[in-house]
Amino acid sequence: MQKIVIIGGVAGGMSAATRLRRLDEEASITVVERSGHVSFANCGLPYHLGGVIEKRSSLLLQTPESLAARFAIDVRVRHEARAIDRANRRVTVRDLATDEDVELEYDALVLSPGARPVVPRIPGISVAHTLRDIEDLDHLVASARDAREAVVVGGGFIGVEVAENLVHRGVAVTLVEATDQVMAPLDPEMVEPVHDAMRAAGVRLALGVSVVRIDPGEPGEPHLAHLSDGRAVPAGLVVAAIGVRPETSLAAAAGLALGERGGILVDDSLRTSDPAVFAVGDAVEKRDGLDASSVLVPLANTANRQGRVVADVIAGRPGVDRPVLGTAIVEVFGVAAAAVGWNEKRLREAGRPHRVIHTHPGSHAGYYPGAEAMALKLLVDPGTDEILGAQAVGRDGVDKRIDVVATAMAGRLTAGDLADLELAYAPQFGSAKDPVNMLGWVDRAVADGDVETLQWHELDGALAAGATLVDVRSPREHAVRPVPGAVNIPVDDLRARLEELPDGPLVVHCEVGLRGYVAARLLAQHGRSVRNLDGGYRTWAAGTAGQRTAERVGAPA
Amino acid sequence: MQKIVIIGGVAGGMSAATRLRRLDEEASITVVERSGHVSFANCGLPYHLGGVIEKRSSLLLQTPESLAARFAIDVRVRHEARAIDRANRRVTVRDLATDEDVELEYDALVLSPGARPVVPRIPGISVAHTLRDIEDLDHLVASARDAREAVVVGGGFIGVEVAENLVHRGVAVTLVEATDQVMAPLDPEMVEPVHDAMRAAGVRLALGVSVVRIDPGEPGEPHLAHLSDGRAVPAGLVVAAIGVRPETSLAAAAGLALGERGGILVDDSLRTSDPAVFAVGDAVEKRDGLDASSVLVPLANTANRQGRVVADVIAGRPGVDRPVLGTAIVEVFGVAAAAVGWNEKRLREAGRPHRVIHTHPGSHAGYYPGAEAMALKLLVDPGTDEILGAQAVGRDGVDKRIDVVATAMAGRLTAGDLADLELAYAPQFGSAKDPVNMLGWVDRAVADGDVETLQWHELDGALAAGATLVDVRSPREHAVRPVPGAVNIPVDDLRARLEELPDGPLVVHCEVGLRGYVAARLLAQHGRSVRNLDGGYRTWAAGTAGQRTAERVGAPA
Repeated sequence: MQKIVIIGGVAGGMSAATRLRRLDEEASITVVERSGHVSFANCGLPYHLGGVIEKRSSLLLQTPESLAARFAIDVRVRHEARAIDRANRRVTVRDLATDEDVELEYDALVLSPGARPVVPRIPGISVAHTLRDIEDLDHLVASARDAREAVVVGGGFIGVEVAENLVHRGVAVTLVEATDQVMAPLDPEMVEPVHDAMRAAGVRLALGVSVVRIDPGEPGEPHLAHLSDGRAVPAGLVVAAIGVRPETSLAAAAGLALGERGGILVDDSLRTSDPAVFAVGDAVEKRDGLDASSVLVPLANTANRQGRVVADVIAGRPGVDRPVLGTAIVEVFGVAAAAVGWNEKRLREAGRPHRVIHTHPGSHAGYYPGAEAMALKLLVDPGTDEILGAQAVGRDGVDKRIDVVATAMAGRLTAGDLADLELAYAPQFGSAKDPVNMLGWVDRAVADGDVETLQWHELDGALAAGATLVDVRSPREHAVRPVPGAVNIPVDDLRARLEELPDGPLVVHCEVGLRGYVAARLLAQHGRSVRNLDGGYRTWAAGTAGQRTAERVGAPA
Repeated sequence: MQKIVIIGGVAGGMSAATRLRRLDEEASITVVERSGHVSFANCGLPYHLGGVIEKRSSLLLQTPESLAARFAIDVRVRHEARAIDRANRRVTVRDLATDEDVELEYDALVLSPGARPVVPRIPGISVAHTLRDIEDLDHLVASARDAREAVVVGGGFIGVEVAENLVHRGVAVTLVEATDQVMAPLDPEMVEPVHDAMRAAGVRLALGVSVVRIDPGEPGEPHLAHLSDGRAVPAGLVVAAIGVRPETSLAAAAGLALGERGGILVDDSLRTSDPAVFAVGDAVEKRDGLDASSVLVPLANTANRQGRVVADVIAGRPGVDRPVLGTAIVEVFGVAAAAVGWNEKRLREAGRPHRVIHTHPGSHAGYYPGAEAMALKLLVDPGTDEILGAQAVGRDGVDKRIDVVATAMAGRLTAGDLADLELAYAPQFGSAKDPVNMLGWVDRAVADGDVETLQWHELDGALAAGATLVDVRSPREHAVRPVPGAVNIPVDDLRARLEELPDGPLVVHCEVGLRGYVAARLLAQHGRSVRNLDGGYRTWAAGTAGQRTAERVGAPA
């Protein structure tokens, strides 16, 4: 009979435990969990804070009792693993209620300790809440009850979700983020709709700013958060959500190898440097799906997958951990933002050549009521047409398009292949030319040399170098949402007014890029040197709005 | 200068025309369209009937004037192509307003005539409406104004959409369908939620029934539709929607080759048997994505794709028409039904081995409000694990899952590969184990021999052969929704009550298949011969409900 001990009873750990039972009815399976709960809905925590998930009990998907009954798993909550005696294959576990230690023997040990919130080292930070488990949630809910103002430190997934849910509670929220934008997986011109939605909902975004000190409030008074721009923000509640770090203390103390990113090092069987010890989930380093580099990807679905793989390996089956693309999504005040693969920031840093495509399709056919505009971005290897990454932002249909692109990446389809995908079309759900198909067509047009595009951040340079910018939208659109310096000739008038265009290189733009493409094809065939502003006015406006924020941030307050 | 004439100004024809202009600024491009409109939203027609799309003008995406201005295309509406003189490369075109004929010369001719509604040959059918173009819609809307009862003949896409929209207008609808089910792309156990939704909305479904005669009503009185079951249904309005047939009269008269299915025969450059004549869209035979057989797939997205390909070919570029999977979706009274690839009916007819998987996941995490149950079905080649087809039915998230599976099929991922897809997870959008991942896991469990499943229609045979059926749900579920003949031992009690099980083969079932799987693993490891009822009670109940309909249909009225 195999003795298996699993440290950590959420996501990866519990997936491993239940899968192991299904594979081996005889094994002894013990799960040790430091908090008071196992298998809770980690990703749902912020939504109970805001009352979206009304009942706290909804978050508790399993209990020690239910797991014992169905899977004969010995689940010990409020037990902390203190040390691993690798030579004798024993774990010392402390019962946090009694402070008594017991020793658990193992044939195989699985570490699934997760990641812990990073807390900035600033004076007064001890008043800050973090949100990792049910106990954290209970404390946060209790503190939020009396708070009128809150400061959320950090604009990642947890930060924006907590900010939204505090607003739902009627709390005035200031979100402080050290970079120029929330949601780092998105490039700056893609994140603007998220910023807009948060501001519209009343969140004060302090971007490019950090908290330098928190003064505890007098009894009955809020704390005071001092920001790097000199402001002081009252905060009955402070939440630290600047990120997470692999929980490696137990592994490190046991002498298990850590990787370059600070996570537990595992091979593709999820074995650590000790063949009897395995590790899964947010605590381990994963292999990147594009370049096989070591990455930290703290996602629940990845953790669950690894839990299954490690169970297979322990049960003597073939089990291979896969590289990760890191597909992720967040919704804030009705705006969904999703990403897969690499973003442009990362490609630039890595010096990897890339082709960029921006589109602004409707979530479904424009003639059917309720279509919402979305922004899509595709990043492509210009040499091989490999899809390197994608981003999508909007109020509807965003998750679907990112899932389709993620699946295409898994299937090694090229960007051009997206044009040929057969996606389910009825006017409620998409378009006869689906947004994903359109990405493929735009990619082919660029790859085939039918059109040369210019990115939003390249426009100033092109104009400085002498290009003429032609707005091919209607005079009304031109008047209401102008790009400075553009002359206006609507695309439908272009053939008749070719003579009006000055000599030299041209840049055309429209609202989203489509009329610009038609205009660019026309002008190119008339012998003109022309580039189309990729994503049109909308991408340019979003990108330059972000730039202005960044400049404000750089300027004295 | 190349002279191009295109017959048919919707979908494929107009995609070809605009793409040709983008590729060739000099070509002469003429589009001939029999109806009064080009580029109208074909798939939106039923929704204007019901007022969902309020303005008729929303359906008119382009006009001859807009196409002339932007693309310099000579669009002639209310012109009918009468004959092709292939030897001299001329088309005779009649102006339907003046009855005058003109001859148009061509270097390349593109036929995009679409498909026409099939009208059953029964007495009195001349009163029936069909719905193909804006003129049909106008007639239908005018007639619907005074109708209180309608008979819709045919339960395909158009039939169910027209039925729904007539209900929206307050018309009492009887839908008459000759087979036992609406929506033939779905297998019978998958279509039941569609039947349920239609019946709940007040549609009288006459399945397994046909219309044998229509007696015209007296002035001011409705017509009377006589059905094959002896009933006579009053109908102020009759709509014939039993299907469509490729429009081939012009092609056939010109001596162009037709295929085995009655569509225009084209090669993978979309050339007909005459190298100067091309054809696209619903009128042509396509190649099936699974077995390359000749198929008719009348879908707007396929037509658009072919329009682009044919433009590339005519412009001298490489252009290759792709085989089709036929991904399709319909929504009726809030229930979406989607399918891709082959269904089980077709696999059986073809004698092709297949593995079947049914699941009933939530559209998103159950702990987050608003999750809707859906039914999924996956069809897999048991030898290669190739995905042969999929179906999905439910109120939310159905389109996304079918699009993901369709993309996986395009990327030649296996069914097992679905388990590893990284899909965007936040609780509003999916689950950490997404429904598509679950399909992959179930597939692997069956492929690996971890569980043997039994299909809903195999249960009676298994019980007759002596198997014992064990319901592993709770006593309450067992009492409320029983499968006849089952004994009830909840999965959580199973280990303690193994002795109660009689000798011999066992079949276990639960509500959706998941607890049954856990029970089957447990029992198999205790040495029992056991099969899990695939899809659990829900699939069995849906399948047998459909069977009962079929039996009623077979019985005397």
